[in-house]
Amino acid sequence: MVANSPLNPKDRNAAFKTPEDVIARVLSGERRALAHAVTELERLSPTAPALLQAMQPHLGNALVLGITGPPGAGKSTLVNAIIKHLRSINKRVGVIAVDPSSPVSGGAILGDRIRMTAALDDNDVYVRSLASRGYLGGLSPAAVRVIDALDAGRFDIILLETVGTGQNEIDVAEVADIRLVISAPGLGDDIQAMKSGLLEIADIMVVNKGDREGAERTMHQLLGALSIRASTGNKIPVLKTTATTGEGIAELMQAVETIGSQVRAAPKTERRRKRARYLIARAAADLVAGRIKGGSTSGLNELSDAVLAGTLRPEDAAKQLLKDA
Amino acid sequence: MVANSPLNPKDRNAAFKTPEDVIARVLSGERRALAHAVTELERLSPTAPALLQAMQPHLGNALVLGITGPPGAGKSTLVNAIIKHLRSINKRVGVIAVDPSSPVSGGAILGDRIRMTAALDDNDVYVRSLASRGYLGGLSPAAVRVIDALDAGRFDIILLETVGTGQNEIDVAEVADIRLVISAPGLGDDIQAMKSGLLEIADIMVVNKGDREGAERTMHQLLGALSIRASTGNKIPVLKTTATTGEGIAELMQAVETIGSQVRAAPKTERRRKRARYLIARAAADLVAGRIKGGSTSGLNELSDAVLAGTLRPEDAAKQLLKDA
Repeated sequence: MVANSPLNPKDRNAAFKTPEDVIARVLSGERRALAHAVTELERLSPTAPALLQAMQPHLGNALVLGITGPPGAGKSTLVNAIIKHLRSINKRVGVIAVDPSSPVSGGAILGDRIRMTAALDDNDVYVRSLASRGYLGGLSPAAVRVIDALDAGRFDIILLETVGTGQNEIDVAEVADIRLVISAPGLGDDIQAMKSGLLEIADIMVVNKGDREGAERTMHQLLGALSIRASTGNKIPVLKTTATTGEGIAELMQAVETIGSQVRAAPKTERRRKRARYLIARAAADLVAGRIKGGSTSGLNELSDAVLAGTLRPEDAAKQLLKDA
Repeated sequence: MVANSPLNPKDRNAAFKTPEDVIARVLSGERRALAHAVTELERLSPTAPALLQAMQPHLGNALVLGITGPPGAGKSTLVNAIIKHLRSINKRVGVIAVDPSSPVSGGAILGDRIRMTAALDDNDVYVRSLASRGYLGGLSPAAVRVIDALDAGRFDIILLETVGTGQNEIDVAEVADIRLVISAPGLGDDIQAMKSGLLEIADIMVVNKGDREGAERTMHQLLGALSIRASTGNKIPVLKTTATTGEGIAELMQAVETIGSQVRAAPKTERRRKRARYLIARAAADLVAGRIKGGSTSGLNELSDAVLAGTLRPEDAAKQLLKDA
């Protein structure tokens, strides 16, 4: 894989010699090296551990901005408007678009939509689609490694966009440093219900399509709902944007920056460890679920029957199971 | 709580004497006894274990039909049409509507929508709203106990409806005996992506709003997507309905009955154990996640750092963690 004698050693496109070489070139902003590193990390190829180790001293600078919300809120258009704004103030922007992995979509709806409008030849914007994991979504563990690669590539802000489905939102809540929940007027009752679940994780609420009728009402509804949640102590900003015209984007990014400065004040390691803990938690849950589905654990039927009969709480059965495992 | 001398012992509304008395009255179709049992089980009150035990010999007859799909597909209207059809063929129908628990919705959007149209004075229809669990949804363990109560109440079919958000769909997939995934034409790209995740769990796909333009195209898209999935061996029916007129509902319920007869051929206990295993799995996952978030487990930081550095896979860190726990 690693060529020993590249045809032209001075060529910036020269073959990658060592993981350290790749990372040095990623750090210097070489796009091909970045793409190479991202791919290796996504696949967890044999060189991935060495790449990750070579990166370690250079990580923890990028701010990961999670962007989620119900269908129809205009997330992709907003992502494009945010990219445009961040480029106008000379920030480098990485985008990870998490698409459901499925035969219908082919797994690249969000990424394509962003790529179509983002400047393709801008070395300071990098868009990567990632398929979500397994059935009904869920962030691939690869996303955390790709975040690290973009961080090493000196992207200031990494936008992590997901379509609001299944496990995705829960995962974005855990992985992102700051969470934007996007909403829009007139999306109907079900959407209202979805949004409400998302309220719990928002650091900033955005009412997009702010030029539409009902935008003010949606904002008031959200403010009302958030005032009930006020017991948590944090005041959640509710901001109005019109992504198609760029209206409100600067104010939104100002609010992001305010929270971002608090996030940056915390130790870098802790932010990254939070992501690792999340990966471990999901893997542990999968492990336990697998054991249960496999039915291999002895005594599982007895535990199940006791739960059904109401003599054992599921929590106590789970404790028993983890002890036996 | 239990009165020793009810004013009129012959009154069907007499106070409940013992758990066995409650269940006997549930079995005889007394609505107030059912409501009492459901509430006790939902809250897991002190009498709940005794109620569950008294029920055991009478369980396993009801078919649990999970109904899920993206917002805007017309799930509640379809549920109403299904209720109407099942009543016309003299089936008793229980409905559990799982609503996001949140300050915005107040937690009863779906249930209210169904109650508004379902006959309130029909003793053979019972509708119960349940708040979903925790942030971003997820079926409450109470749902499984309420299923048992309705099963004891001799409801032939229990419809379990959820709004398509967060953990809900994953849970319905595990808990229901048969899964209907509802879709509709013209819901846009994001919806398309959501649907595609749901394809994996469908036993029957429904294209509702079948009188709208694009219904045929949506059906063809789904059939195409499902043919790719055909490797699993099961042929998934794709059916068109127009819930507002009742068109296609009889055919849909015919398809449900075909799968239902296969489901009923399996041992009753196994279907119920599957639900208990699911409850235990979720509780175990919560337990592990709690330990990780609490950060109490010794060595967790070391494990996290090794995962970040790529020297340890999350799966292996999880194994370590479960072993130590």
